[in-house]
Amino acid sequence: MEDNQLPRKKDEHLHAKRQKEILGAAKQCFVAYGFHGTSMRQILDLAGISAGGVYNYFSGKADIVKALVEEERADIGLLIQQLESNPRPLAGIAQLVSDAIAYTAYEDAVLAAEIWAEACRNPEIKQLERVNSDLIKGALNSAISSGIRVEEITDQHKADDLAEWVLALLEGCIGRIAADKQLKPKKVARTAKLSVISFLQRSK
Amino acid sequence: MEDNQLPRKKDEHLHAKRQKEILGAAKQCFVAYGFHGTSMRQILDLAGISAGGVYNYFSGKADIVKALVEEERADIGLLIQQLESNPRPLAGIAQLVSDAIAYTAYEDAVLAAEIWAEACRNPEIKQLERVNSDLIKGALNSAISSGIRVEEITDQHKADDLAEWVLALLEGCIGRIAADKQLKPKKVARTAKLSVISFLQRSK
Repeated sequence: MEDNQLPRKKDEHLHAKRQKEILGAAKQCFVAYGFHGTSMRQILDLAGISAGGVYNYFSGKADIVKALVEEERADIGLLIQQLESNPRPLAGIAQLVSDAIAYTAYEDAVLAAEIWAEACRNPEIKQLERVNSDLIKGALNSAISSGIRVEEITDQHKADDLAEWVLALLEGCIGRIAADKQLKPKKVARTAKLSVISFLQRSK
Repeated sequence: MEDNQLPRKKDEHLHAKRQKEILGAAKQCFVAYGFHGTSMRQILDLAGISAGGVYNYFSGKADIVKALVEEERADIGLLIQQLESNPRPLAGIAQLVSDAIAYTAYEDAVLAAEIWAEACRNPEIKQLERVNSDLIKGALNSAISSGIRVEEITDQHKADDLAEWVLALLEGCIGRIAADKQLKPKKVARTAKLSVISFLQRSK
């Protein structure tokens, strides 16, 4: 049994490594030339993979975008885990907003914009994006509800409306970073964090 | 002189009317099928214009999108005019945010998303979009500066950072309306307005 599995594990490891290399190359191309301006050829050349070889990994550009949305989901999972492990809901939400914005470099924001633009014309990608934003919204919603219960967060609004507001701010800030290369993500993150605390905090 | 100008004015009027009809048809198509999923043929059929005739008005789909961005600029101009005529800067900003979101129906938000997606791959459209957001940002910036001077708006942040924040919130809210058909623009607008007042108002 063990002996039989060893080579398969090695293959799986190599497969995952190659897949990651192709995704990395695709990201660079999408940021530089846009999704529509990028050919599979360019991605392969940058990843150093033969033309035939790539189809063991991805069936085409749309398939690569799907993998990128799933990669984004893993990042979201980490942010949510951090939020849920914070004993103080408001501080956790402020931190999530701050981290999500501050670690979005201009290139990441442009990539997010490209993926989002593609979601406008590919319902399958739109659905995957929807799952991602529903995940964040759900986590925000439950953290806000906890915060209202422990009287840390204002009860002047419904938890769901506040969760929508936080998500709009978060996505809007990342959109602004993509739109203006001069903007400093850390600065945008700082203002966003302070606004979350100011608006959500229950007044004494 | 007068006699010579009369027929030209009538032509101009007809030209503008037809142009508006084509733009209206294009909007409906873009919202229903997406920018890439729409053909010039579909736009013409909906506008009831002959295939040859359209080229007196627009050279192609990209040209139509440019006209839509310019149309958006006219709306922005009205919002800015209203802001500048408000003697109380903070109330003016809150009203601008509220109006811009509340009057963005789901279809308008989807159209904005389509235009934005197109800007990702057409630098000329991106540039036009940039002019629009710079216009709003400039108006917000100067209203915030006035508000700081008259001690109505907090001096804990730079006017420019606050203007960026308002713009991010505004664009994020419109993005959320496009992403989720269930969202009520008026409800989103109300929360956004209250958050603008809460975050920008100088504490007594």
